[in-house]
Amino acid sequence: MSENRVVYFVKRPSAMVAPDAFEVRREPMPASGQTDAVLVESLYASVDPYMRGRMADRKSYTAPFEVGQPMTGGMVGRVLESSTEGVSPGAWVFGMWPWAEYALVPARSLRVLDPHLPPTTALHVLGLTGLTAYIGLTKFGRPQAGEQLVVSAAAGAVGSLVGQIGRLMGLKVAGIAGSDEKCRWLQENLQFDTAFNYRAENFSRTLADHLKNDGVDIYFDNVGGPVTDAVMSLLNPHARIVVCGQIALYNLDYGLEERPRFSDLLISRAQASGFIVAEHQSEFPEALETLGRWYGEGLLVAEETITNGFDHLIEAFIGLFHGQNRGKAIVRIK
Amino acid sequence: MSENRVVYFVKRPSAMVAPDAFEVRREPMPASGQTDAVLVESLYASVDPYMRGRMADRKSYTAPFEVGQPMTGGMVGRVLESSTEGVSPGAWVFGMWPWAEYALVPARSLRVLDPHLPPTTALHVLGLTGLTAYIGLTKFGRPQAGEQLVVSAAAGAVGSLVGQIGRLMGLKVAGIAGSDEKCRWLQENLQFDTAFNYRAENFSRTLADHLKNDGVDIYFDNVGGPVTDAVMSLLNPHARIVVCGQIALYNLDYGLEERPRFSDLLISRAQASGFIVAEHQSEFPEALETLGRWYGEGLLVAEETITNGFDHLIEAFIGLFHGQNRGKAIVRIK
Repeated sequence: MSENRVVYFVKRPSAMVAPDAFEVRREPMPASGQTDAVLVESLYASVDPYMRGRMADRKSYTAPFEVGQPMTGGMVGRVLESSTEGVSPGAWVFGMWPWAEYALVPARSLRVLDPHLPPTTALHVLGLTGLTAYIGLTKFGRPQAGEQLVVSAAAGAVGSLVGQIGRLMGLKVAGIAGSDEKCRWLQENLQFDTAFNYRAENFSRTLADHLKNDGVDIYFDNVGGPVTDAVMSLLNPHARIVVCGQIALYNLDYGLEERPRFSDLLISRAQASGFIVAEHQSEFPEALETLGRWYGEGLLVAEETITNGFDHLIEAFIGLFHGQNRGKAIVRIK
Repeated sequence: MSENRVVYFVKRPSAMVAPDAFEVRREPMPASGQTDAVLVESLYASVDPYMRGRMADRKSYTAPFEVGQPMTGGMVGRVLESSTEGVSPGAWVFGMWPWAEYALVPARSLRVLDPHLPPTTALHVLGLTGLTAYIGLTKFGRPQAGEQLVVSAAAGAVGSLVGQIGRLMGLKVAGIAGSDEKCRWLQENLQFDTAFNYRAENFSRTLADHLKNDGVDIYFDNVGGPVTDAVMSLLNPHARIVVCGQIALYNLDYGLEERPRFSDLLISRAQASGFIVAEHQSEFPEALETLGRWYGEGLLVAEETITNGFDHLIEAFIGLFHGQNRGKAIVRIK
């Protein structure tokens, strides 16, 4: 415990993110002893597509990562040293801190985890991922039972929860994912009504054939790009599009070929809403209560792809953009 | 009065609409005498960009025009024969009927005009144009005094009213139009705060320079295409985009180069709403009362470009797509 390893962000990627954007540095252990600073040992790191957005030097909903600074994200860890009441050594906590084995974190930014729940749920179904799915679908999707929901990146962390929540709310759910295996899993394990492989030949036509009678009432968009183009021409009147992510675009330079048409919004009198969950904190308690109840009753499958070892943090992150995860991608650090 | 002239729609245009899409036919006068059918003499015809959308054979918010049928639109006329109480011969009426010198129209579809108001206002500030501007801006733009509004096709029928209504609601108003002369007119006659010529060199950069401090809180979009692309990168957090028209796209085949990015919606947590005014009829009375009051008090300039003569109906319509009108384009038939 005399040394710490930290992942630094050292180079802005211009297209597909690669390992040379990062550097692992060995450093002395963070100095403890500051009031209100808690020394934590990192146990799990959340790797998320939105982080790619922060690696670009342009206006976005969160500040860009600064070159030369550590990567930072959602983490679960164990308290090693603390002088703050209620955050005792040994407690498991959730917070945002660097991709590092150890970190000094302000006590007020930490949430102590319920020991009865699997700790990774704090990064997942009972964390920002679940909140994103629930608040995005309910607040911006405004679902009515019987409506047709389409979810892109449906086998991903947010998408797999959106589809399941949609089913629990009485929607018909179609998922779009990147392999036949993921599509089978969505239908067999997550009870999606249908699922479509966007890499299959004739994807657009197959999707249109299947949805031509029902159309699309809610499109929960995690990807953008050609997949979104295929869905946009199937919108029903007054459809709602929840713009949650655009993973297909994160690794592209600007100047895109494939972009949704506002004329589709006009034709269908549809509404497209970009949102980020951090701006809806007043709704977290109600959402977490509902998600917790569903999860406790076994109604939500909280799929995780866990990569073992700090040494594999970077490759797990890059793997997000190559479809390597099913459900939430998490790295077990210790 | 023994003969009628009617404009028929005879050929779907594949790109820019041209005169060969239409044919003027001479026909006998419509037979009167049916119960509830009123014989009207057409006095003014409204020509509107949305009609180009109905000339394409694809799903839209109104049914496509059928090839071989007359063109139909908003009209003002005088009642010649009627057996319906309240719709007496001599009355001036508004309704939807064919581009023809005379027509038989169901009495229940007609609105008798207030003789104290200029009759063309029924096609304009006190008709669907004004309602579109008012309801689009207030309901979907959700303006707050002091916010920055940007309007495209700002010298057009809807756009010129949107900007003026925005001013009356305390917004800062920037217009985008197609000539320096239109831009001057917007600033000098309609009190727009600023106006930008999208045909000028460096349009995007000039727009960005002027708006870089305020950003864009509401974008009322009548055009789509490159103009919209230029505005999308200037959105403030929680901006609202009112997708009212996409005139830049109406005359293009599908497969567009320039399309707004949903990633812009995500970055700014913005909302883009397509709407058509016909679906908001419950709000017409309140909107018309407000518009009528403002107009009566001289607070709204209701600019009109009037083309004289039935013979020029088709060219007036085509002229819409070449920027020939300022304010509402109307054809005086008699």
